Amino acid sequence: MTETTIQMTGTLEPRDSWTADACPMAHALDVVRNRSAFLVLREAFYGATRFEEFAARTGLSEPVTATRLRELTGAGLLEREPYQEPGQRTRRLYRLTEKGSDLLPAIVALMQWGDKWVLPGGARVEVRHHDCGAAVRAELRCEHGHAVGRDELELARR
Amino acid sequence: MTETTIQMTGTLEPRDSWTADACPMAHALDVVRNRSAFLVLREAFYGATRFEEFAARTGLSEPVTATRLRELTGAGLLEREPYQEPGQRTRRLYRLTEKGSDLLPAIVALMQWGDKWVLPGGARVEVRHHDCGAAVRAELRCEHGHAVGRDELELARR
Repeated sequence: MTETTIQMTGTLEPRDSWTADACPMAHALDVVRNRSAFLVLREAFYGATRFEEFAARTGLSEPVTATRLRELTGAGLLEREPYQEPGQRTRRLYRLTEKGSDLLPAIVALMQWGDKWVLPGGARVEVRHHDCGAAVRAELRCEHGHAVGRDELELARR
Repeated sequence: MTETTIQMTGTLEPRDSWTADACPMAHALDVVRNRSAFLVLREAFYGATRFEEFAARTGLSEPVTATRLRELTGAGLLEREPYQEPGQRTRRLYRLTEKGSDLLPAIVALMQWGDKWVLPGGARVEVRHHDCGAAVRAELRCEHGHAVGRDELELARR
């Protein structure tokens, strides 16, 4: 079996010597807590901007959709901007902020995992690179550009 | 503003013409539903194998820890194996399966997002590439090896 644990280094070894009270993953999940929040974000990436689009395309109820949109806007992942069609009252569009857009690698990573491991028969859609048509994946790379294998990871104090 | 939506292609355009009932991301989140499941997986990646380690290191209560371990084992992300210390009764270790290990890109993606956008002052730890020491990130790449920008994504039917 290939070892897939992340090696502790320096004062992080042993693991029981410190508490993960500043865990960035836990903080991320404090903001995007639940499945329905991810569904709303998915539809924002798929181009939804109007409340009715988010509700219809996620399949969430209108109250849940409204709550998620309010939470995601409050957390700064979506922003509202006014729009007005001729003869109509002013309404609001929801757009991804940079903070929201930055979740795309996490969303693609969850898509590829679900596609491989959970969805019977695999997904019927896939994300592709517009320029060349090849399927897109979330990959681990280091800042030096190396593709990083699962047995090549370590946790270090900054 | 850079457009960060994913372009619909072929019969996927317009978005309202199909329902995302086979969404791989939603299926992934049916399995890893909540923050505490991610915390347990984090500790599996950090090397925890014993029940007491998962409970102490995640900060979850023992009943919640037990429930999450049972769910993650049932879903095939962890597997149990017996171990026995001299003079003790047989107990169980929990180890990541290949299915569980495959969530690492999603976990790293959530870590980097939380680190950048949510955690005050940034995380005190980071995942590094063992071979060169550089920080590791989840990046979008296509199967042809191109780094994929956010404005270069399209959704296609398989």
